[in-house]
Amino acid sequence: MERIKMTIPEPIPGEHMAAEISEQPSVLASLVERQSEFAEVAEAIAKRPPRFVLLAARGSSDHAAIYAKYLIEVLLGLPAGLVSPSTATLYGARPDLRDVLFLTVSQSGGSPDLIEITETARSQGALTVSVCNTQTSPLAAASELAVGIGAGVEHAVAATKTYSATLLSLYLLIDAVRGGKGADAQGLGELAQKTLDGSVEGVQRAVDRYRFVDRILTTGRGYSYATALESALKLAETSYLAARAYSGADLLHGPVAAVNGETAVLAVTSRGKGGEAMHEVLDVVSGRGADILAVGSASADVSAALKINVAPTAEELAPILEILPVQRIALGLSLARGGDPDRPTGLLKVTKTR
Amino acid sequence: MERIKMTIPEPIPGEHMAAEISEQPSVLASLVERQSEFAEVAEAIAKRPPRFVLLAARGSSDHAAIYAKYLIEVLLGLPAGLVSPSTATLYGARPDLRDVLFLTVSQSGGSPDLIEITETARSQGALTVSVCNTQTSPLAAASELAVGIGAGVEHAVAATKTYSATLLSLYLLIDAVRGGKGADAQGLGELAQKTLDGSVEGVQRAVDRYRFVDRILTTGRGYSYATALESALKLAETSYLAARAYSGADLLHGPVAAVNGETAVLAVTSRGKGGEAMHEVLDVVSGRGADILAVGSASADVSAALKINVAPTAEELAPILEILPVQRIALGLSLARGGDPDRPTGLLKVTKTR
Repeated sequence: MERIKMTIPEPIPGEHMAAEISEQPSVLASLVERQSEFAEVAEAIAKRPPRFVLLAARGSSDHAAIYAKYLIEVLLGLPAGLVSPSTATLYGARPDLRDVLFLTVSQSGGSPDLIEITETARSQGALTVSVCNTQTSPLAAASELAVGIGAGVEHAVAATKTYSATLLSLYLLIDAVRGGKGADAQGLGELAQKTLDGSVEGVQRAVDRYRFVDRILTTGRGYSYATALESALKLAETSYLAARAYSGADLLHGPVAAVNGETAVLAVTSRGKGGEAMHEVLDVVSGRGADILAVGSASADVSAALKINVAPTAEELAPILEILPVQRIALGLSLARGGDPDRPTGLLKVTKTR
Repeated sequence: MERIKMTIPEPIPGEHMAAEISEQPSVLASLVERQSEFAEVAEAIAKRPPRFVLLAARGSSDHAAIYAKYLIEVLLGLPAGLVSPSTATLYGARPDLRDVLFLTVSQSGGSPDLIEITETARSQGALTVSVCNTQTSPLAAASELAVGIGAGVEHAVAATKTYSATLLSLYLLIDAVRGGKGADAQGLGELAQKTLDGSVEGVQRAVDRYRFVDRILTTGRGYSYATALESALKLAETSYLAARAYSGADLLHGPVAAVNGETAVLAVTSRGKGGEAMHEVLDVVSGRGADILAVGSASADVSAALKINVAPTAEELAPILEILPVQRIALGLSLARGGDPDRPTGLLKVTKTR
């Protein structure tokens, strides 16, 4: 008797993450085309104008929420805060949320704790809006208004295209609330392509340089603080690096004491006020002997061991582009260190904690 | 001619930090005695009842603000958020802050960016309250209401007594706003002494164990998340460790991928809901081979390589006690590694960033 031999193709390490990183220019371009959908949600929000905005999120989406917080405070002039889900889920807090816009950001839209706090917020009088990959998620169902970022299925465990698409969705939504039509975001897909194409060599050099890095921190200010946070998470979850992020201001306050010649610093330096405020930070860390990798549209203006340029854009939109080469560094480092970023051990795509 | 020989005594490494850690029981006991002063400020707040609370702080005070955020959401049922000072100082955001209680927390009361955003908040209609070490600070002058924590001069660069005293001041203030008289805080000074006395051996064992540690993360949930944050900062700024903190929930979402047999995990596990929710987190990290140090009043209930007990108290107050042995670990580690926590290179006591 003959036995039939079946060949299951070996998975190629990082194939999903690599593919999804490359999809971002088209994902972003399609989102810009859908501006009118964001305008509709913004119109519904305008009927119940909020006094305050609360944001709920976890993981990469938490960094998107921090980005949105800056947009809301600066562009809308509304105070905004990030919710600690556990005050509701663990301690049963039931705050008065009338006049509050409650924005839940979740790639999967399936995290039980985020669904629970969104339901609680709604019952406490908030206008609830969810930002998820699909509008059919349980979280979207729990919210009064739902934005679908439409990035397509994300197979890789590390969020890449859903992260950049979430940032852009939040921008388009908040811009629409202030009456904008996403003018600054026109052409963002092309700028993303340009950034990816233009950073191939820099990414490879960063991967080579960090192959044996032990101590890495990321830093940025203003809108780009979100990039620093997301960069540290991406490096930690794909390459198992003990990366940590600081806002440039907080770094100088204390943790800079731990910076020395053994420290790699990934600094986000784009054009605009946040990037300008990084000069002081970089002077101090380079004075302490740190090895600096500058990523951003103003990386050429700073003194750094390695510089990766990012296509210039409006400062508010820069984080959407800044993260692209960093995603590729995380991917490349994971592979160089013998890992598979698509199959990290112990990583859950949907948080189940309460 | 005879020359007069003057002997300037050599500074003893860590003497200030050691002394200030030991002062905490009496500092906390005196604060409890001053409950009526907090009640007065609370009364003034009650005349302009807030709908929303914003907190502004940096460094250790930022962790105190996060602690306060949990208290405000749970005990007062008010939504609360942490301010990103740079939205105002870099980008000129001028949000509408009527009905907002704006709480600025700063040990020194001298950070220019915190003074600036407090002035801005006041001009935008917020009721501004500052929590500083002294009521004569520039920040106190910029605020309508001022709380002085009265911890005495802090000579060490790493905040210890001002941190625990700030937590207790925030607790007493928030408890007074809900009409409480600080009943749960009675005897806290004695519990602090008991915690310090009872943890001497555990602290020494932790210092021995971490002498050569490379990779350390701290984690906690609920109120004790603040302890995890402050622990990581203390270790980073005194012992130059690349320590980083995660809420237990966020840790499981992604960064747990970087946890392995080389990772030391300082887990805060006190009695109550936050501590209970840590069991799942500890199961996962110990399943990945991490070396766990449990600190808290429920440390005996978890499986860990090393356990440091903290005197039990109301869950809301636990962070004030949990940090005490960790401060001594940071001090001991700094000395064991040849450092001087009183004179870390490059650490600024007052943040000057804008």
